[in-house]
Amino acid sequence: MKNKIKLSAAVLALLMGASFAAQAQFAKVEDAVEYRQASLSVMGTHFGRIAAVVKGDKPYDKAALENDAAIVEMMSKLPWTAFPPNSIVGDSKAKPEIWTAGDKFKTDADNLQAATAKLSVAAKSGDLSAIKAAFGDTAKTCKTCHQDFKKKD
Amino acid sequence: MKNKIKLSAAVLALLMGASFAAQAQFAKVEDAVEYRQASLSVMGTHFGRIAAVVKGDKPYDKAALENDAAIVEMMSKLPWTAFPPNSIVGDSKAKPEIWTAGDKFKTDADNLQAATAKLSVAAKSGDLSAIKAAFGDTAKTCKTCHQDFKKKD
Repeated sequence: MKNKIKLSAAVLALLMGASFAAQAQFAKVEDAVEYRQASLSVMGTHFGRIAAVVKGDKPYDKAALENDAAIVEMMSKLPWTAFPPNSIVGDSKAKPEIWTAGDKFKTDADNLQAATAKLSVAAKSGDLSAIKAAFGDTAKTCKTCHQDFKKKD
Repeated sequence: MKNKIKLSAAVLALLMGASFAAQAQFAKVEDAVEYRQASLSVMGTHFGRIAAVVKGDKPYDKAALENDAAIVEMMSKLPWTAFPPNSIVGDSKAKPEIWTAGDKFKTDADNLQAATAKLSVAAKSGDLSAIKAAFGDTAKTCKTCHQDFKKKD
Protein backbone atom coordinates (compact mmCIF):
# COMPACT_ATOMS: atom_id res chain seq x y z
CA MET A 1 0.00 0.00 0.00
CA LYS A 2 2.83 2.35 0.89
CA ASN A 3 4.48 1.62 -2.48
CA LYS A 4 1.21 2.27 -4.27
CA ILE A 5 0.87 5.66 -2.63
CA LYS A 6 4.46 6.50 -3.53
CA LEU A 7 3.84 5.56 -7.15
CA SER A 8 0.68 7.62 -7.31
CA ALA A 9 2.50 10.62 -5.89
CA ALA A 10 5.24 10.16 -8.49
CA VAL A 11 2.69 9.93 -11.29
CA LEU A 12 0.89 12.99 -9.96
CA ALA A 13 4.16 14.92 -9.82
CA LEU A 14 4.89 13.90 -13.41
CA LEU A 15 1.45 14.98 -14.58
CA MET A 16 1.71 18.26 -12.74
CA GLY A 17 5.18 18.76 -14.16
CA ALA A 18 3.89 18.27 -17.69
CA SER A 19 1.09 20.71 -17.05
CA PHE A 20 3.43 23.29 -15.52
CA ALA A 21 5.82 22.91 -18.43
CA ALA A 22 3.07 23.89 -20.84
CA GLN A 23 2.00 26.78 -18.65
CA ALA A 24 5.51 27.97 -18.00
CA GLN A 25 5.83 29.13 -21.61
CA PHE A 26 3.35 31.92 -20.90
CA ALA A 27 3.52 34.40 -18.05
CA LYS A 28 -0.25 34.91 -18.01
CA VAL A 29 -3.21 32.79 -19.10
CA GLU A 30 -4.25 35.70 -21.35
CA ASP A 31 -0.90 35.42 -23.17
CA ALA A 32 -1.57 31.74 -23.87
CA VAL A 33 -5.03 32.55 -25.23
CA GLU A 34 -3.64 35.31 -27.45
CA TYR A 35 -0.89 33.03 -28.74
CA ARG A 36 -3.14 30.10 -29.61
CA GLN A 37 -5.69 32.41 -31.25
CA ALA A 38 -2.95 34.21 -33.21
CA SER A 39 -1.31 31.04 -34.51
CA LEU A 40 -4.68 29.52 -35.44
CA SER A 41 -5.68 32.78 -37.13
CA VAL A 42 -2.54 32.91 -39.29
CA MET A 43 -3.08 29.22 -40.13
CA GLY A 44 -6.70 29.94 -41.06
CA THR A 45 -5.79 32.79 -43.39
CA HIS A 46 -3.31 30.70 -45.36
CA PHE A 47 -5.53 27.61 -45.33
CA GLY A 48 -8.28 29.86 -46.72
CA ARG A 49 -6.01 30.89 -49.58
CA ILE A 50 -5.43 27.23 -50.43
CA ALA A 51 -9.20 26.66 -50.17
CA ALA A 52 -9.79 29.40 -52.75
CA VAL A 53 -7.48 27.61 -55.21
CA VAL A 54 -9.02 24.21 -54.49
CA LYS A 55 -12.51 25.64 -55.06
CA GLY A 56 -11.39 27.31 -58.30
CA ASP A 57 -11.96 30.84 -56.98
CA LYS A 58 -8.27 31.71 -57.39
CA PRO A 59 -5.81 30.58 -60.08
CA TYR A 60 -3.26 27.96 -59.03
CA ASP A 61 0.20 29.40 -58.44
CA LYS A 62 2.66 26.71 -57.33
CA ALA A 63 5.03 28.97 -55.41
CA ALA A 64 2.23 30.81 -53.62
CA LEU A 65 0.45 27.61 -52.65
CA GLU A 66 3.71 26.02 -51.47
CA ASN A 67 4.32 29.05 -49.29
CA ASP A 68 0.77 28.93 -47.91
CA ALA A 69 1.15 25.22 -47.13
CA ALA A 70 4.52 25.77 -45.40
CA ILE A 71 2.95 28.44 -43.17
CA VAL A 72 -0.06 26.22 -42.43
CA GLU A 73 2.29 23.35 -41.54
CA MET A 74 4.39 25.48 -39.21
CA MET A 75 1.37 27.10 -37.54
CA SER A 76 -0.30 23.73 -37.00
CA LYS A 77 2.46 22.81 -34.54
CA LEU A 78 2.11 25.86 -32.33
CA PRO A 79 -1.17 26.22 -30.46
CA TRP A 80 -1.05 23.04 -28.39
CA THR A 81 1.20 24.15 -25.55
CA ALA A 82 -1.07 27.16 -25.11
CA PHE A 83 -4.02 25.40 -23.53
CA PRO A 84 -3.14 25.42 -19.84
CA PRO A 85 -5.98 24.30 -17.54
CA ASN A 86 -8.70 26.87 -16.84
CA SER A 87 -7.67 29.02 -19.78
CA ILE A 88 -11.13 29.92 -21.03
CA VAL A 89 -10.78 33.66 -20.59
CA GLY A 90 -11.59 36.75 -22.65
CA ASP A 91 -13.08 35.93 -26.02
CA SER A 92 -11.75 32.36 -25.97
CA LYS A 93 -13.99 29.90 -27.81
CA ALA A 94 -12.35 26.89 -26.13
CA LYS A 95 -14.76 24.32 -24.71
CA PRO A 96 -14.10 22.72 -21.29
CA GLU A 97 -14.06 19.33 -23.05
CA ILE A 98 -10.47 20.14 -24.14
CA TRP A 99 -9.42 19.20 -20.62
CA THR A 100 -12.04 16.55 -19.85
CA ALA A 101 -12.21 14.41 -23.00
CA GLY A 102 -9.13 12.33 -22.29
CA ASP A 103 -6.65 12.16 -25.19
CA LYS A 104 -9.15 13.20 -27.86
CA PHE A 105 -7.89 16.80 -28.10
CA LYS A 106 -4.27 15.69 -28.40
CA THR A 107 -5.21 13.09 -31.00
CA ASP A 108 -7.04 15.76 -33.03
CA ALA A 109 -4.03 18.07 -32.78
CA ASP A 110 -1.71 15.25 -33.90
CA ASN A 111 -4.01 14.40 -36.82
CA LEU A 112 -3.97 18.01 -37.97
CA GLN A 113 -0.18 18.14 -37.90
CA ALA A 114 0.10 14.88 -39.84
CA ALA A 115 -2.37 16.23 -42.41
CA THR A 116 -0.63 19.58 -42.87
CA ALA A 117 2.71 17.82 -43.35
CA LYS A 118 1.11 15.81 -46.19
CA LEU A 119 -0.47 18.97 -47.62
CA SER A 120 2.98 20.54 -47.70
CA VAL A 121 4.41 17.54 -49.57
CA ALA A 122 1.51 17.70 -52.05
CA ALA A 123 2.06 21.44 -52.52
CA LYS A 124 5.73 20.83 -53.34
CA SER A 125 4.77 18.12 -55.87
CA GLY A 126 2.73 20.61 -57.85
CA ASP A 127 0.09 17.94 -58.49
CA LEU A 128 -3.21 19.78 -58.09
CA SER A 129 -5.29 16.62 -57.59
CA ALA A 130 -2.93 15.52 -54.79
CA ILE A 131 -3.22 19.01 -53.31
CA LYS A 132 -7.01 18.83 -53.41
CA ALA A 133 -7.02 15.43 -51.66
CA ALA A 134 -4.58 16.59 -48.97
CA PHE A 135 -6.56 19.79 -48.52
CA GLY A 136 -9.74 17.78 -47.98
CA ASP A 137 -8.05 15.52 -45.43
CA THR A 138 -6.71 18.55 -43.56
CA ALA A 139 -10.08 20.31 -43.59
CA LYS A 140 -11.65 17.20 -42.02
CA THR A 141 -9.20 17.37 -39.09
CA CYS A 142 -10.10 21.04 -38.53
CA LYS A 143 -13.82 20.24 -38.58
CA THR A 144 -13.54 17.23 -36.25
CA CYS A 145 -11.64 19.22 -33.64
CA HIS A 146 -13.86 22.31 -33.90
CA GLN A 147 -17.02 20.22 -33.47
CA ASP A 148 -15.86 18.85 -30.14
CA PHE A 149 -13.68 21.60 -28.76
CA LYS A 150 -14.60 25.02 -30.17
CA LYS A 151 -17.69 27.02 -29.29
CA LYS A 152 -19.68 28.35 -32.21
CA ASP A 153 -19.51 32.09 -32.94
CA MET B 1 0.28 67.58 -72.48
CA LYS B 2 -2.12 64.89 -73.60
CA ASN B 3 0.71 62.32 -73.36
CA LYS B 4 1.57 63.54 -69.92
CA ILE B 5 -1.99 63.04 -68.74
CA LYS B 6 -2.03 59.56 -70.24
CA LEU B 7 1.20 58.67 -68.47
CA SER B 8 -0.09 59.95 -65.16
CA ALA B 9 -3.26 57.94 -65.59
CA ALA B 10 -1.17 54.86 -66.34
CA VAL B 11 1.02 55.45 -63.29
CA LEU B 12 -2.08 55.98 -61.18
CA ALA B 13 -3.61 52.77 -62.48
CA LEU B 14 -0.40 50.92 -61.65
CA LEU B 15 -0.27 52.36 -58.16
CA MET B 16 -3.93 51.56 -57.60
CA GLY B 17 -3.33 48.07 -58.95
CA ALA B 18 -0.50 47.52 -56.51
CA SER B 19 -2.65 48.76 -53.68
CA PHE B 20 -5.58 46.60 -54.71
CA ALA B 21 -3.29 43.57 -55.01
CA ALA B 22 -2.31 43.99 -51.39
CA GLN B 23 -5.89 44.54 -50.35
CA ALA B 24 -7.26 41.72 -52.47
CA GLN B 25 -5.69 39.17 -50.12
CA PHE B 26 -8.20 40.19 -47.47
CA ALA B 27 -11.96 40.42 -47.93
CA LYS B 28 -12.28 43.06 -45.21
CA VAL B 29 -9.94 45.65 -43.71
CA GLU B 30 -10.64 44.03 -40.31
CA ASP B 31 -9.24 40.75 -41.65
CA ALA B 32 -6.03 42.48 -42.67
CA VAL B 33 -5.69 44.04 -39.22
CA GLU B 34 -6.31 40.69 -37.52
CA TYR B 35 -3.76 38.97 -39.77
CA ARG B 36 -0.98 41.49 -39.27
CA GLN B 37 -1.59 41.58 -35.51
CA ALA B 38 -1.67 37.77 -35.32
CA SER B 39 1.54 37.25 -37.27
CA LEU B 40 3.33 39.98 -35.29
CA SER B 41 2.02 38.46 -32.05
CA VAL B 42 3.34 34.97 -32.86
CA MET B 43 6.65 36.54 -33.88
CA GLY B 44 6.75 38.49 -30.61
CA THR B 45 6.16 35.39 -28.49
CA HIS B 46 9.02 33.46 -30.08
CA PHE B 47 11.32 36.47 -30.18
CA GLY B 48 10.58 36.86 -26.47
CA ARG B 49 11.70 33.28 -25.86
CA ILE B 50 14.99 34.01 -27.61
CA ALA B 51 15.28 37.20 -25.55
CA ALA B 52 14.94 35.16 -22.34
CA VAL B 53 17.89 32.97 -23.39
CA VAL B 54 19.98 35.97 -24.47
CA LYS B 55 19.32 37.68 -21.13
CA GLY B 56 20.20 34.51 -19.22
CA ASP B 57 16.69 34.06 -17.82
CA LYS B 58 16.26 30.71 -19.58
CA PRO B 59 18.86 28.01 -20.28
CA TYR B 60 20.11 27.77 -23.87
CA ASP B 61 18.60 24.83 -25.75
CA LYS B 62 19.87 24.71 -29.35
CA ALA B 63 16.87 22.91 -30.86
CA ALA B 64 14.32 25.11 -29.09
CA LEU B 65 16.10 28.32 -30.07
CA GLU B 66 16.50 27.17 -33.66
CA ASN B 67 12.77 26.48 -33.77
CA ASP B 68 11.98 29.88 -32.26
CA ALA B 69 14.24 31.59 -34.80
CA ALA B 70 12.64 29.70 -37.71
CA ILE B 71 9.19 30.83 -36.58
CA VAL B 72 10.40 34.42 -36.13
CA GLU B 73 11.93 34.35 -39.60
CA MET B 74 8.76 33.02 -41.23
CA MET B 75 6.49 35.42 -39.35
CA SER B 76 8.68 38.41 -40.22
CA LYS B 77 7.70 37.96 -43.88
CA LEU B 78 3.95 38.01 -43.36
CA PRO B 79 2.48 41.26 -42.05
CA TRP B 80 3.48 43.58 -44.87
CA THR B 81 0.74 42.85 -47.40
CA ALA B 82 -1.79 43.47 -44.63
CA PHE B 83 -1.46 47.24 -44.43
CA PRO B 84 -3.95 48.45 -47.04
CA PRO B 85 -4.58 52.21 -47.01
CA ASN B 86 -6.94 53.48 -44.32
CA SER B 87 -6.63 50.31 -42.29
CA ILE B 88 -6.42 51.87 -38.84
CA VAL B 89 -9.53 50.21 -37.45
CA GLY B 90 -10.49 48.46 -34.22
CA ASP B 91 -7.60 48.22 -31.77
CA SER B 92 -4.97 48.81 -34.45
CA LYS B 93 -1.88 50.60 -33.18
CA ALA B 94 -0.77 51.54 -36.70
CA LYS B 95 0.25 55.16 -37.19
CA PRO B 96 -0.82 57.08 -40.33
CA GLU B 97 2.89 57.61 -41.09
CA ILE B 98 2.96 54.05 -42.45
CA TRP B 99 1.32 55.43 -45.59
CA THR B 100 2.82 58.91 -45.60
CA ALA B 101 6.52 58.39 -44.81
CA GLY B 102 7.57 57.32 -48.30
CA ASP B 103 9.58 54.09 -48.41
CA LYS B 104 10.58 54.16 -44.74
CA PHE B 105 8.05 51.55 -43.63
CA LYS B 106 9.03 49.17 -46.43
CA THR B 107 12.72 49.69 -45.66
CA ASP B 108 12.09 48.90 -41.98
CA ALA B 109 10.16 45.76 -42.95
CA ASP B 110 12.98 44.68 -45.28
CA ASN B 111 15.57 45.31 -42.56
CA LEU B 112 13.62 43.14 -40.13
CA GLN B 113 13.45 40.28 -42.61
CA ALA B 114 17.17 40.51 -43.35
CA ALA B 115 17.91 40.50 -39.61
CA THR B 116 15.66 37.51 -38.82
CA ALA B 117 17.29 35.53 -41.65
CA LYS B 118 20.67 36.17 -40.01
CA LEU B 119 19.26 35.26 -36.60
CA SER B 120 18.10 31.97 -38.03
CA VAL B 121 21.57 31.26 -39.45
CA ALA B 122 23.13 32.11 -36.07
CA ALA B 123 20.62 29.84 -34.29
CA LYS B 124 21.60 26.95 -36.55
CA SER B 125 25.30 27.57 -35.88
CA GLY B 126 24.78 27.03 -32.16
CA ASP B 127 27.23 29.85 -31.41
CA LEU B 128 25.61 31.72 -28.54
CA SER B 129 27.66 34.89 -29.00
CA ALA B 130 26.63 35.00 -32.69
CA ILE B 131 23.03 34.47 -31.58
CA LYS B 132 23.28 37.34 -29.10
CA ALA B 133 24.67 39.68 -31.76
CA ALA B 134 22.01 38.70 -34.31
CA PHE B 135 19.32 39.03 -31.65
CA GLY B 136 20.50 42.56 -30.84
CA ASP B 137 20.49 43.54 -34.51
CA THR B 138 16.98 42.17 -34.93
CA ALA B 139 15.70 43.91 -31.80
CA LYS B 140 17.00 47.21 -33.20
CA THR B 141 14.92 46.79 -36.37
CA CYS B 142 11.79 46.16 -34.23
CA LYS B 143 12.46 49.26 -32.15
CA THR B 144 13.18 51.52 -35.14
CA CYS B 145 9.95 50.55 -36.85
CA HIS B 146 7.82 50.76 -33.69
CA GLN B 147 9.14 54.23 -32.88
CA ASP B 148 7.96 55.63 -36.19
CA PHE B 149 4.96 53.51 -37.02
CA LYS B 150 3.35 51.99 -33.91
CA LYS B 151 1.29 53.89 -31.36
CA LYS B 152 2.27 53.36 -27.74
CA ASP B 153 -0.06 51.21 -25.59
